[in-house]
Amino acid sequence: MNEELKHYNDRAENLILNHLESGNVSKMIKDASIYSIQAGGKRFRPYLVFATLKSFGLDPAAGLSAAGAIEMIHTYSLIHDDLPAMDDDNYRRGQLTNHKVHGEAVAILAGDNLLTESFNVLAEDESLPADIRIQLVQVVSRAAGQSGMIGGQMLDIEAEGKNITMDELVMIHRHKTGKLIVAPIESAAIIAAADDETKALLLRFAEYLGILFQIRDDILDVEGDMSVTGKLSGSDARKEKVTYVSTYGLNGAKEQLELLKDDAEEILENLSSKLDTDELYSVLQMFAVREQ
Amino acid sequence: MNEELKHYNDRAENLILNHLESGNVSKMIKDASIYSIQAGGKRFRPYLVFATLKSFGLDPAAGLSAAGAIEMIHTYSLIHDDLPAMDDDNYRRGQLTNHKVHGEAVAILAGDNLLTESFNVLAEDESLPADIRIQLVQVVSRAAGQSGMIGGQMLDIEAEGKNITMDELVMIHRHKTGKLIVAPIESAAIIAAADDETKALLLRFAEYLGILFQIRDDILDVEGDMSVTGKLSGSDARKEKVTYVSTYGLNGAKEQLELLKDDAEEILENLSSKLDTDELYSVLQMFAVREQ
Repeated sequence: MNEELKHYNDRAENLILNHLESGNVSKMIKDASIYSIQAGGKRFRPYLVFATLKSFGLDPAAGLSAAGAIEMIHTYSLIHDDLPAMDDDNYRRGQLTNHKVHGEAVAILAGDNLLTESFNVLAEDESLPADIRIQLVQVVSRAAGQSGMIGGQMLDIEAEGKNITMDELVMIHRHKTGKLIVAPIESAAIIAAADDETKALLLRFAEYLGILFQIRDDILDVEGDMSVTGKLSGSDARKEKVTYVSTYGLNGAKEQLELLKDDAEEILENLSSKLDTDELYSVLQMFAVREQ
Repeated sequence: MNEELKHYNDRAENLILNHLESGNVSKMIKDASIYSIQAGGKRFRPYLVFATLKSFGLDPAAGLSAAGAIEMIHTYSLIHDDLPAMDDDNYRRGQLTNHKVHGEAVAILAGDNLLTESFNVLAEDESLPADIRIQLVQVVSRAAGQSGMIGGQMLDIEAEGKNITMDELVMIHRHKTGKLIVAPIESAAIIAAADDETKALLLRFAEYLGILFQIRDDILDVEGDMSVTGKLSGSDARKEKVTYVSTYGLNGAKEQLELLKDDAEEILENLSSKLDTDELYSVLQMFAVREQ
């Protein structure tokens, strides 16, 4: 990550923490919500907002509320995913999961809180005009809801124990993780008031990025360094999950990733007459070779 | 309820159902979300939006998205409240709770979905200007979040098994149920572009209405007809809950309710030079004598 843009990631985190700190009814909901925000994470999604704004030659700070809101939604989804009724995970990134520390009831409410307050963060950002803010609420709620992330989570649950096809798997990924990778880039395009053609190309780039993210995940599950990924290797194979690696083999998955990277680069070439695409190239590279 | 306004309640329900039906990723998330919307309910909150708009002489239809969004949030909060980790209820209004029919994982996601999509319903309402929509997102997210309903739910959990004072109880009610009774009236005032004085008076009226709602709840728990309330009588006493009745006695609680009603009527008198307050008087009466 570019150090300049990483600085905006820190500002987005501060924005979230200040917002949560401003709650004045229950200290416990504040503490439980902040716990999961501070549990770390790669902050890829906020970074995508800032990198895209920079490609328009704009001040990345214009995307702070969008970046914060999307990271809050990502975090709430992890809290609820980790619950006993869902994936029943005790640890995430080497730390106890929210419900293991605060109990299930509080964890459910902390997730609900981060989701609810994410829309408050967007709506209260007085630095953006109302019509931009309302477009951001539209884009983020669509990406997070039944036609986005939650739809994908549900498909994932429905697929458990079934033999699904590669097409069905792509459908799950495109929604479960893909939509919340597209949303930061789309949010930045809205803030930048991008023309339709630029926006369409950026969205296609973002979709490729989302799939590439998942292929890299599947590869890391096989050959990742546990001390870096924080996850046990080979867990997909043990769970007999359908993945890019199980379908195409390790080398096949790597080829798929390279092909996708080529396609995404081609889109960036098309965008280069309008945008400074350097930062987006770096993002693509980062997603393709990331070790965690 | 006024038959004309009840008709708008039906339209708000249709708006919610059509919105949920438009989801195209997972049938299961759609079905689970719709299940709880169709489980019925008194629809007090949408009704408050329409009654307030009527008092401004406006078309109640202008409040359909706000009414729908607030009812979706109310419904999601019930789904999550009923979960085993929360109140662990098997029945609500004589029907199996969401998790009893769809399982816990799906119920958690259905609640998340209704919450997320409520903001989408507000943001996508093209019949309202962007600056009105963004104010509605602000008001509704504040009412539902850490400084509103979720804050109150958390206080309620923190109070379990403790001897709390009447002041602490009022604090819980003002947030847990009160904020989502104020929100529909505040939303209508925003849509009506009410002046500051009118808005302030309406908000005070709404707050009184919220407390009155709770006192009536406590009274009904003692002398309500189970076949009408759908709840076992005396459950508060069995759980040794602090209520208005346990603090002031049954007659004392009824006196409190009458005093509050008098205060609320006084506010309506003050409002009568600006608004047609007939419908709001009826609402007050309805809240004071409701049997369910």
